[in-house]
Amino acid sequence: MDRQSTPLVDPSSPVFRAHLGGKLATLATQPLRDAADLSLLYTPGVAEVSRAIAADPKLAGTYTSIRNTVAVISDGTAVLGLGNIGPLAAMPVMEGKAVLFKRFGGVDAVPLCMETGTVDELVDAIARVAPTYGGINLEDISAPRCFEIERRLQERLEIPVFHDDQHGTAIVVLAALVNAARVVGRDLATLDVVVSGAGAAGVAVTKILLLAGVGHVVVVDSAGTLHTGRAPLPPHKQELAALTNRRGVAGGIAEALVGADVLVGVSGGTIPESALARMAPDAMIFALANPDPEVHPTVAHRYARVVATGRSDFPNQINNVLAFPGVFRGALDCGARQVTEKMKLAAAYAIAALVEHPTADEVVPSVFHPGVAPAVAEAVRRAA
Amino acid sequence: MDRQSTPLVDPSSPVFRAHLGGKLATLATQPLRDAADLSLLYTPGVAEVSRAIAADPKLAGTYTSIRNTVAVISDGTAVLGLGNIGPLAAMPVMEGKAVLFKRFGGVDAVPLCMETGTVDELVDAIARVAPTYGGINLEDISAPRCFEIERRLQERLEIPVFHDDQHGTAIVVLAALVNAARVVGRDLATLDVVVSGAGAAGVAVTKILLLAGVGHVVVVDSAGTLHTGRAPLPPHKQELAALTNRRGVAGGIAEALVGADVLVGVSGGTIPESALARMAPDAMIFALANPDPEVHPTVAHRYARVVATGRSDFPNQINNVLAFPGVFRGALDCGARQVTEKMKLAAAYAIAALVEHPTADEVVPSVFHPGVAPAVAEAVRRAA
Repeated sequence: MDRQSTPLVDPSSPVFRAHLGGKLATLATQPLRDAADLSLLYTPGVAEVSRAIAADPKLAGTYTSIRNTVAVISDGTAVLGLGNIGPLAAMPVMEGKAVLFKRFGGVDAVPLCMETGTVDELVDAIARVAPTYGGINLEDISAPRCFEIERRLQERLEIPVFHDDQHGTAIVVLAALVNAARVVGRDLATLDVVVSGAGAAGVAVTKILLLAGVGHVVVVDSAGTLHTGRAPLPPHKQELAALTNRRGVAGGIAEALVGADVLVGVSGGTIPESALARMAPDAMIFALANPDPEVHPTVAHRYARVVATGRSDFPNQINNVLAFPGVFRGALDCGARQVTEKMKLAAAYAIAALVEHPTADEVVPSVFHPGVAPAVAEAVRRAA
Repeated sequence: MDRQSTPLVDPSSPVFRAHLGGKLATLATQPLRDAADLSLLYTPGVAEVSRAIAADPKLAGTYTSIRNTVAVISDGTAVLGLGNIGPLAAMPVMEGKAVLFKRFGGVDAVPLCMETGTVDELVDAIARVAPTYGGINLEDISAPRCFEIERRLQERLEIPVFHDDQHGTAIVVLAALVNAARVVGRDLATLDVVVSGAGAAGVAVTKILLLAGVGHVVVVDSAGTLHTGRAPLPPHKQELAALTNRRGVAGGIAEALVGADVLVGVSGGTIPESALARMAPDAMIFALANPDPEVHPTVAHRYARVVATGRSDFPNQINNVLAFPGVFRGALDCGARQVTEKMKLAAAYAIAALVEHPTADEVVPSVFHPGVAPAVAEAVRRAA
């Protein structure tokens, strides 16, 4: 059977069975047995609570679900590696994310899948429904729109707005790099890092690595390395070019990797083995494209001491679920109005610290390590 | 202690205790125990489901929660009898409504409390997030904006959009009137009805009564009876004036009630006892303002054989919860794209039929009658 005629749906497969009817439901947290319960939870009793909140809006944090509720928002324009598949097809991913929020962070997250539109339209619609939520997790929105949407929502709203494809990835990459550097006995300040990909993840990874004190970063997109002499560049790449590549490395990924200590792949596609062969000794390769890493782990191990991917079937799974449940748990708990750079760094170091004795095969904790979200939440609360 | 100094919040009271932390949470419907579960519910497995939906959007009804999820949407401009108290203060009511949706209809409803704005802004924002939901329940949005918002959303979307303050109330009033007419041995076609109030509920009650064949309806607002000679009137009152008051009754509520068989109060305020005294023998009074009916039941009983209110502490509670859970259950089950007039009538007759032998003290079933939502859902499915 060729690819075209392969049926897309196999209702009897475990994946489709696990998705039947969706993965998320609502749950009433109070019993509703009789007229007495009804008069407490609904009219006339509820009017007392509404009146109290109208007089003092802060009480909404105490007497509604807002404070523990996060919207997982996507317009379906950049879903996983599938591209612009629209809001309906994005829904299984957003539901899955909501399930992870609850399971790992005790956060009541709800999907919000939107018809796409201009940045103005998306920002206006999200800002309009924002009173319902204690925080907003943006997800799978195409670059470069995602940068402006996030920035404008952050300016307009007084609740945390966190684009997970950027910051969740960045936090976990930094956590992994902190431990990988320990494994090879290096200091972050001495590392030469190449980031392959200048989309949402590439931008945020680069920024957090610089913030954490990494010595030199070169970003490579499909047209080659970013540097201030390259033009014309869209604003987010101009910004990266100004922040990185102090040495002015030109060329493509092969040139960038000469003598590099670290490769962070957040681009998809394949990085040729010949380029990897030019990396420095004791290299670290994080090939994060899912489900197909930019470098297969078997290949990567020929040139690197520490190899990480986004996959659960190899060691060192760099998965955002290590970060976002705890980040939001912490931010909601302390009523933070934003997730600051300091909070993100604290989250990364907290994740790294959960691995007491890092080895080449364990630079990040398992996503099922029960201590992860509580430790991240605690670090975020302290940093807030 | 005077009213001004009465504290608005008594954290130890049953109402505030019942609302602590909100009344609604999310629930994952699938277990997430280990990496195998994670790879089914999230990456990489979820990509198969997203791909399938991208190829055939109808599959979203089968493999996501959309089909069983209803948004309970308010901008907080007309909450209960409290008026324009804003989206945060509306939240306890919308959460309560969501709890009722789940408890009585098995519908996963989620609150969506919005910053208010122009009709255009609200319609655009709601339409943009609509892909997430199988239906939309509009709630506590001020008149006359609510009429245009509902109409434009109905034109734009292919899922049921139902303003419960209008249609839920109308359905249950009709159900009660069908049985009250049986109690007093009258046919709907012979009844003279006065509707006090020309807001959301008044408009919809009037329309459904006419549709059900009620003989004569006069609508009274704060300035008197609606009739085609009265000007200027806003569009929704012009429409009512054209549909009602064939006899051209002028004056106020006192004039309208002379010889009337039925009074439906959906206005708030108080209707003077002297006006009630002019009603016909075997009158029926439905005084639905909450928590203070337009006529206290004790007073109403002096002039009417059948008395109904919105209160749970008197017989004949006319409560929308008799209608909306079953209406949406039925509409979602059959994939209806709208809630038609036929479906609303069917819902009303189904509710009425649940009272086998109506009496003056039982014209509607209890909201806790377990047969209500299933019977309404079945009637709605058949009418669809």
